[in-house]
Amino acid sequence: MAQAIVNNGVNVDALLAAREALKSAPEAAKFTWRASCTWKNGTFTQTKVQGFHGLGAEQKHKAEFSFDADHPEIFASEDLGATPVEYVLVGLVSCLTAGVAAVAQNRGVQLRSVEAKIEGSMDIQGILGIDSEVRNGFDGIKVTYQIDADATPQEIEAIVAQSQKRSAVYDVITNPVNVTVEVV
Amino acid sequence: MAQAIVNNGVNVDALLAAREALKSAPEAAKFTWRASCTWKNGTFTQTKVQGFHGLGAEQKHKAEFSFDADHPEIFASEDLGATPVEYVLVGLVSCLTAGVAAVAQNRGVQLRSVEAKIEGSMDIQGILGIDSEVRNGFDGIKVTYQIDADATPQEIEAIVAQSQKRSAVYDVITNPVNVTVEVV
Repeated sequence: MAQAIVNNGVNVDALLAAREALKSAPEAAKFTWRASCTWKNGTFTQTKVQGFHGLGAEQKHKAEFSFDADHPEIFASEDLGATPVEYVLVGLVSCLTAGVAAVAQNRGVQLRSVEAKIEGSMDIQGILGIDSEVRNGFDGIKVTYQIDADATPQEIEAIVAQSQKRSAVYDVITNPVNVTVEVV
Repeated sequence: MAQAIVNNGVNVDALLAAREALKSAPEAAKFTWRASCTWKNGTFTQTKVQGFHGLGAEQKHKAEFSFDADHPEIFASEDLGATPVEYVLVGLVSCLTAGVAAVAQNRGVQLRSVEAKIEGSMDIQGILGIDSEVRNGFDGIKVTYQIDADATPQEIEAIVAQSQKRSAVYDVITNPVNVTVEVV
């Protein structure tokens, strides 16, 4: 059986077991992901990620992750980190790529390499308030995969399509999410 | 004049000058932001950010930024980085917070500290394919600001509201963005 010798490093058996377990405990499927942001100076901020809630309990990453964000020098900032919009691209491409590995594993397809380029286009007349007809965010995002795997081009296409179908970040970006902002 | 002594580290004069310059050169306002993702193993990926296009030319951050993403151990992964959905939260909260600093500067409001908590809730019955009625992404995101500034609570509320109005990532998350994924 081909599947037995395929190893993309994804523990699909554990994921399928979790799916079965959550079917009878839907409350445990409710997750809350969190981050804490501190303004440093100008457009430079530092955001930390560690705790989250899921499986009915508080959870913690093994380490605290810290992310510097800033605007580039051409926007008169100090370029001390990636821009916020680039963080969104990182989230989308990493979500889809993890999905490619998981779906390939589930379908018994051995991956050798997966590379993805992502680009988001944006007319900054929106954020600068020059033209109110121009949106602030991306007017489109394009992801291009180059995948070396033991599979036909059609099978690879289907794996990528299934990853989109199950991707949390793809959903967040292609569909509206309600965001509430409050000051305490 | 209050504005003269306010310094949040944002060069608003340069931004206003850029806005004037771009009014007569709208092509220069077209930006493309990019990232390149390499699959490492399992759900672990590394995404690099450095080049982008804008002001009619190729641009480069001062340094290359690299981001590890993974799923946590409770999803049978190795937790070698923040999750993709947490990267989205980092992007949103850093975008809104940079906006708070810029708007405050433009309004002559001195900030002393800005802290933001962000949380996104998600029912993972979606991504696990348990219930097709459950969306894959966040069912809602909440951002809570704690701001110490030389301003009334009403002025602070208005600054935060204006930041939302001009935020690229807030737009990306609250409104649909077209995403194209292809395999070459």
